[in-house]
Amino acid sequence: MGWGDLGVFGEPSKETPNLDRMASEGILFPDFYTANPLCSPSRASLLTGRLPIRNGFYTTNAHARNAYTPQEIVGGIPDSEVLLPELLKKAGYINKIIGKWHLGHRNKYHPLNRGFDEWFGSPNCHFGPYDNKERPNIPVYRDWEMIGRYYEDIYINHKTGESNLTQIYLQEATTFIYKYGISKQPFFMYWAIDATHAPVYASSRFLGTSRRGLYGDAVREIDFSIGQILEFLKNMGIAKNTFVFFTSDNGAALISAPHQGGSNSPFLCGKQTTFEGGMRVPGIAWWPGQLAAGQVSYQLGNVMDLFTTSLALAGLEPPADRQIDGIDLSPVILEGKEVERPIFYYRGNELMAVRLGPYKAHYWTWSNSWQELSQGINFCPGQNITGVTTHDQVEYIKPLLFHLGRDPGEKYPIRPSSAEYQNVMLGISPVVRQHKDTMIPGEPQLNVCDLAVMVNLYKIMKTSAI
Amino acid sequence: MGWGDLGVFGEPSKETPNLDRMASEGILFPDFYTANPLCSPSRASLLTGRLPIRNGFYTTNAHARNAYTPQEIVGGIPDSEVLLPELLKKAGYINKIIGKWHLGHRNKYHPLNRGFDEWFGSPNCHFGPYDNKERPNIPVYRDWEMIGRYYEDIYINHKTGESNLTQIYLQEATTFIYKYGISKQPFFMYWAIDATHAPVYASSRFLGTSRRGLYGDAVREIDFSIGQILEFLKNMGIAKNTFVFFTSDNGAALISAPHQGGSNSPFLCGKQTTFEGGMRVPGIAWWPGQLAAGQVSYQLGNVMDLFTTSLALAGLEPPADRQIDGIDLSPVILEGKEVERPIFYYRGNELMAVRLGPYKAHYWTWSNSWQELSQGINFCPGQNITGVTTHDQVEYIKPLLFHLGRDPGEKYPIRPSSAEYQNVMLGISPVVRQHKDTMIPGEPQLNVCDLAVMVNLYKIMKTSAI
Repeated sequence: MGWGDLGVFGEPSKETPNLDRMASEGILFPDFYTANPLCSPSRASLLTGRLPIRNGFYTTNAHARNAYTPQEIVGGIPDSEVLLPELLKKAGYINKIIGKWHLGHRNKYHPLNRGFDEWFGSPNCHFGPYDNKERPNIPVYRDWEMIGRYYEDIYINHKTGESNLTQIYLQEATTFIYKYGISKQPFFMYWAIDATHAPVYASSRFLGTSRRGLYGDAVREIDFSIGQILEFLKNMGIAKNTFVFFTSDNGAALISAPHQGGSNSPFLCGKQTTFEGGMRVPGIAWWPGQLAAGQVSYQLGNVMDLFTTSLALAGLEPPADRQIDGIDLSPVILEGKEVERPIFYYRGNELMAVRLGPYKAHYWTWSNSWQELSQGINFCPGQNITGVTTHDQVEYIKPLLFHLGRDPGEKYPIRPSSAEYQNVMLGISPVVRQHKDTMIPGEPQLNVCDLAVMVNLYKIMKTSAI
Repeated sequence: MGWGDLGVFGEPSKETPNLDRMASEGILFPDFYTANPLCSPSRASLLTGRLPIRNGFYTTNAHARNAYTPQEIVGGIPDSEVLLPELLKKAGYINKIIGKWHLGHRNKYHPLNRGFDEWFGSPNCHFGPYDNKERPNIPVYRDWEMIGRYYEDIYINHKTGESNLTQIYLQEATTFIYKYGISKQPFFMYWAIDATHAPVYASSRFLGTSRRGLYGDAVREIDFSIGQILEFLKNMGIAKNTFVFFTSDNGAALISAPHQGGSNSPFLCGKQTTFEGGMRVPGIAWWPGQLAAGQVSYQLGNVMDLFTTSLALAGLEPPADRQIDGIDLSPVILEGKEVERPIFYYRGNELMAVRLGPYKAHYWTWSNSWQELSQGINFCPGQNITGVTTHDQVEYIKPLLFHLGRDPGEKYPIRPSSAEYQNVMLGISPVVRQHKDTMIPGEPQLNVCDLAVMVNLYKIMKTSAI
């Protein structure tokens, strides 16, 4: 889901009344980011509080190469990483993941090996349907047991886009909340649904109801479901004890737009890129009675902060033996403070850009390759900014600098000869130098899956677009 | 001001709390349009309820040529047109225009000759400063008296962008409201400020306060002022008797972005074009106690409707001897109804596009000329959609068709061979045919000012951008 898919962020059809209400009862973060413009690395960062280059969810076999965990991958989240549920468990929390795991397919990476007590969902997206010759359909688990496969056992009508998967995930959520809410057992629920990922689906109740087509139907169903969850927490009387955060793992995928892709408006490009459209995501904090309603926070936030913040709220310390990139947002959330911190935009093994305050400096630009473009794959459809949305990988000795307040769309680079440029870079350069000088990259986990697999998957995704 | 400049429409800095509150207390119209992508024709349409091609605010001396009323123009709003204040006057209303008139510079076109009882403002924008050799600075009037000129007498600091003009306009507004509010005299106030028009300005209280730069300062001051006006109406106890509507005369001017131009996000291009970015504008209706708060209306609305709606609310009929294009929105506003009606997108003498329901058909596309582009004038900076944002004037026998719900950015034309296309055009074609067959164009008023003047003005505006 993209930043621009929410009514509160200007989607013209204004079809997310529940998320908009969540924001009006909580804190809206217009400057919230994911740790990577792709799914698996973002999720690894969310659960480890660390950049993909540290936690291993990246590649070194091609420069600035995006990678995730398709079925063929042997890698996964390393044992050496400490995951949020593992820590919360020590404080007596019961942890459940509902939906997409994405941190490794093999048994050793199973969520119940990594701090979760319960799982209903899948190691991957609902890609497919596959022919079971080249590759099987994606498995779905309840805890340790594989209960079936997408398409074969979990109904997804590829032609109509009908599936009640989000309803199943919602049912799992309320059942879990009820069970542990009633017994006053502290719990952590990671509701990792995938309805807006292509191939997009919605249940019959929502199908055909959006002014935005099928993608909008999926957004509406997610919005409805979040409304149900928040209502359920209120009705159980545990809302004031339950911190809820809504976000996304990357910007909307524009390669599948308009039928299967959403909106990153007003930001540049989408998923897979380190422009704002790829990494700026919705961020809403909700905690009735604990935080002042109706706030907008300009804090630069990151999904990695949810690791550190969750620990702080549970009275726990983050691991002291490693670099944690997430910061504790509890002073921001509870006291309205604002903390200066940089946002690092990585693509695979390369630091592409850095944001500090309102300024963003691109050290590298790349949308996608000429080869992909010639195949009709475009991460920036309809957007072409000379010297910015480059199809070659371009490195800058004098970084491309933008002021994201005046120019959220990254269209107007600030002239390197200007005083503004020089002043700003005096602040950004040492931050980048220090980050690079102290960086100890983790062992890359996603190298085994080579480019051919990615290209093949794009082909499948394109074919599956209605 | 552009659609995307409001927090409620997704501007990331969320700096319009008063307009956002106005929406939450009233009705937000995400599908509201102006009658023309340029200032003067839009204002002529607002006050006549008629398309520029009918009321004469267009040209015939070049195909699809945009035109307005620079100082050199001899034309203005024809005597034969009936203006909103002329009609309201008959029902006992006192009418005031504060700000930009833009319907003719010569004395015969003076607003006090056309139904207004009071005027504080100017026949034109605050362009300049001029050297008083080639052309004088723009005059400012109080009623019949010219009280001075912009820059010479009304302070606008061209370097810092400081001017207290919006504060003066605000003072004029509250004084007028107080005077007639206290005496229970029905009044019509047309608050036609111009602070977001290049060269952009703000008063010292707002200068440097926006996260968006000078343009954002101007938006913040407008937002503040509207908050003040609404508060004033409430405090005087006349809010429930006062219908207020907020809108803009065209999309944000992207040629002056980012320092002097705003946001039409997620829509394509900006001012001067018949893409959504040029003509979709903010629309907010406010009338506490009379309309249900917190509504979103998907009604296709147009500034021309404010003519017809205002008459209806005042218990008056529109003139019966001519075609009125504006529809009465009072059933929409008061009863939540939705009326099917087309939106016509004109550029000068040409019907470029038509919207019906969620679909928009372009019969002509044109962003701007190759010649302008080569001079660095670009109405669609960073946006380049092959076969859509054309620099030649392109006519379509099979119109370019978009679904604005799925594709608000007009990026993905629907294939003419598809069943969807054919069904939709079955509905749109007769509407266009009927519109053209019954069209009786007015005498064009803006021909005298030739293209050279426009080009010259662009040059001045570009030079005046900080």
